[in-house]
Amino acid sequence: MKLLVNPSPEKWKKQLARPVQKTKEINKIVKPIFEKVEKNGDKALKKFAQEYDHVSLDSLLATAEEIKAAKDQISKELKEAIKTAKANIERFHAAQASPELIEEVMPGVVCRRKSVPIQRVGLYIPGGTAPLFSTVLMLGVPAKIAGCTEIVLCSPPNREGKIHPAILYTADLVGITKIVKVGGAQAVAALTFGTESVPQVDKIFGPGNQYVTAAKQFATKYGVAIDMPAGPSEVLVYADETAVPAFVASDLLSQAEHGVDSQVVLVTPSDKFAKKVLKEIDVQLEDLSRKDIAFKALQNSTAVVMEDQKTALELINDYAPEHLIIAVENEEEAVEAIYNAGSVFIGNFTPESAGDYASGTNHTLPTYGYARNYSGVSLDSFLKKMTYQKITPEGLKTLGPVVEVMAANEQLDAHKNAVTIRLNYLKEKMKCP
Amino acid sequence: MKLLVNPSPEKWKKQLARPVQKTKEINKIVKPIFEKVEKNGDKALKKFAQEYDHVSLDSLLATAEEIKAAKDQISKELKEAIKTAKANIERFHAAQASPELIEEVMPGVVCRRKSVPIQRVGLYIPGGTAPLFSTVLMLGVPAKIAGCTEIVLCSPPNREGKIHPAILYTADLVGITKIVKVGGAQAVAALTFGTESVPQVDKIFGPGNQYVTAAKQFATKYGVAIDMPAGPSEVLVYADETAVPAFVASDLLSQAEHGVDSQVVLVTPSDKFAKKVLKEIDVQLEDLSRKDIAFKALQNSTAVVMEDQKTALELINDYAPEHLIIAVENEEEAVEAIYNAGSVFIGNFTPESAGDYASGTNHTLPTYGYARNYSGVSLDSFLKKMTYQKITPEGLKTLGPVVEVMAANEQLDAHKNAVTIRLNYLKEKMKCP
Repeated sequence: MKLLVNPSPEKWKKQLARPVQKTKEINKIVKPIFEKVEKNGDKALKKFAQEYDHVSLDSLLATAEEIKAAKDQISKELKEAIKTAKANIERFHAAQASPELIEEVMPGVVCRRKSVPIQRVGLYIPGGTAPLFSTVLMLGVPAKIAGCTEIVLCSPPNREGKIHPAILYTADLVGITKIVKVGGAQAVAALTFGTESVPQVDKIFGPGNQYVTAAKQFATKYGVAIDMPAGPSEVLVYADETAVPAFVASDLLSQAEHGVDSQVVLVTPSDKFAKKVLKEIDVQLEDLSRKDIAFKALQNSTAVVMEDQKTALELINDYAPEHLIIAVENEEEAVEAIYNAGSVFIGNFTPESAGDYASGTNHTLPTYGYARNYSGVSLDSFLKKMTYQKITPEGLKTLGPVVEVMAANEQLDAHKNAVTIRLNYLKEKMKCP
Repeated sequence: MKLLVNPSPEKWKKQLARPVQKTKEINKIVKPIFEKVEKNGDKALKKFAQEYDHVSLDSLLATAEEIKAAKDQISKELKEAIKTAKANIERFHAAQASPELIEEVMPGVVCRRKSVPIQRVGLYIPGGTAPLFSTVLMLGVPAKIAGCTEIVLCSPPNREGKIHPAILYTADLVGITKIVKVGGAQAVAALTFGTESVPQVDKIFGPGNQYVTAAKQFATKYGVAIDMPAGPSEVLVYADETAVPAFVASDLLSQAEHGVDSQVVLVTPSDKFAKKVLKEIDVQLEDLSRKDIAFKALQNSTAVVMEDQKTALELINDYAPEHLIIAVENEEEAVEAIYNAGSVFIGNFTPESAGDYASGTNHTLPTYGYARNYSGVSLDSFLKKMTYQKITPEGLKTLGPVVEVMAANEQLDAHKNAVTIRLNYLKEKMKCP
């Protein structure tokens, strides 16, 4: 982790640059996968399962027996933990629902706005050695609350042709019934085009490796929406001497263990504090099972000593971190000044991992600086807001002339005529009731 | 307009296919424009103004004098109309604001969600013969309500080097102070990279020709967000014999006059009604100034006789129209059954042009079938929803073990450790107060 002291603003972009992503070469791999899935459907998916997952599948769908068996394959303790996390996520996401808006903007002109579920959604859940069952909660719970009619979960099978039991258990608990054994770019292609086993969807959610990320971006060319553009995960911790160096070190490491391209940043007013944290990182790193990954991620990472709080907050907004931990004395002032961050963790006893799993907020958040212009996944991500308007004859008499003048000035005669023809009709009708 | 009677569902996609868009060739033109703007800034923009707008500009910014003069160049009638439209749009969009959400999901675990404005937004307003000042209202009003700190409006200059006075007047009325004389793909490039005169923005909004559309898509590669993918405008009218054929014809024509690639669709249970509408279209078409455009658009267009209401509504959801006019006897039943549409216009006296200008709803809506997975522009489009969490020591004692179990099962030790280290600290503290 490199240490910078009071860097000047014009150098921030370069000094805190995120690792570059190579998308061009990956796109070359993704394109033929899409072509094969579009052309050959399930047959292509089964062939990819042999090639990439080293397993021969008869059926691509997880069976009722597999789902039932999963229940016994995971500990009672884990099941209870998943239930508690689900309850919190459910509560916070259900509270995000907004009532229908009905507004009579002028007499006889009523505008409405209503949330309508996106009908068909696909959730991608990475598998492998570390099965991200927490992501099943983060995507499945809001999809259910939104009322999406078709929820398709895709996750790669292991060498026995099974999806990890914790993923199956969580999917079943959430109420997802369509669980498909397919991973990688081919899963995204299947959700984009539909195959015999995989329904075509309107929007694709979920994290994944660089192939999945590239595939999601590629899928948008075919009219599918995606949750957000993705990059490696990151955390920025803003801490002063009221924070505990060991806590801060543990938070930075919890992000660093995600992947070698993760980035962690410490911003602190105190040089002394920064050095204590760096020392603690060295100590804690030794005992981590994913030590090598975290070690490499730390090489992309930076501790910034910034004495002035105003400038520090500017730097944080400029960086726009996915996760932001604020552990400083005047925390409320700092929190209020932040306008670019995915999710904010406040105080000494709010580790990022709480939000990653169970506090109730969503862990699918904008990375790579996208916190400037994107929100994290929420209930809204599974809804569309449709607008409605109804105008009475009286309303049109008032509003119509306004529309006529504006349309005429935009030189759109037919737009004007759609009003004029109605106003004339009303005039005629008044004459001969 | 071709006439189909009770087409079978497997043929809908093909029979109602929208005109294909050629993006590949356009991209070839857009890329060098981006390169030049990135490299040469204002100098490139001025060169493009000479090349495409046939004007030599000293300054790219509209001056205070030009804005003041614009006030006198448009009629009092138009100014009043714009003010009325603004009031309606303001009222409906202000009502879309949602209060901060604060939820204590379990004792000591508080989650919050707050709307924060996207800081810097760019609004593209097409110029030329038909200046879309209405779009200034549709984008500028919600940007102002959201509280975006930098709002940049770009619109091409005419041969006198001026922006159309109706655009200048409306921008000034809304409170937009940064008005730049630049159009086309080069405007989008300028907003993406920033130049000496044009601030870099986080999100770009607005309609445009195929070059602007391609440029917006291209801009997303550089981390900028855009309002939504765009295609030609379209309307679907669902009407039965309780509707007035002349009204329906006028609505179809108001959409057809937008461009030769616009598409209009009539769905009706009655063959007789369909024929009446087609006849009315022929009559009304004759008097339109944009007759040739509307005539060509009608060649992409279809009237569908669908006797069964349930199937008709399925067809409409399958098509997912940008604008949907519903003028049938049991209108509420039909409205309730629709889940894929941008904006819905209900009844005989609610022409689409009312919403295009002045009813209060936004006219920037998802085209090309994107009503399946995108919302139209609203106040939300200018906001991000940030989440926050704060956990007390007591809260962490309850929630911490849940996080520990889940992290351990996802094999993310450092995630677990960020909790464990805090729980241990609290245990120690209890021992030695």
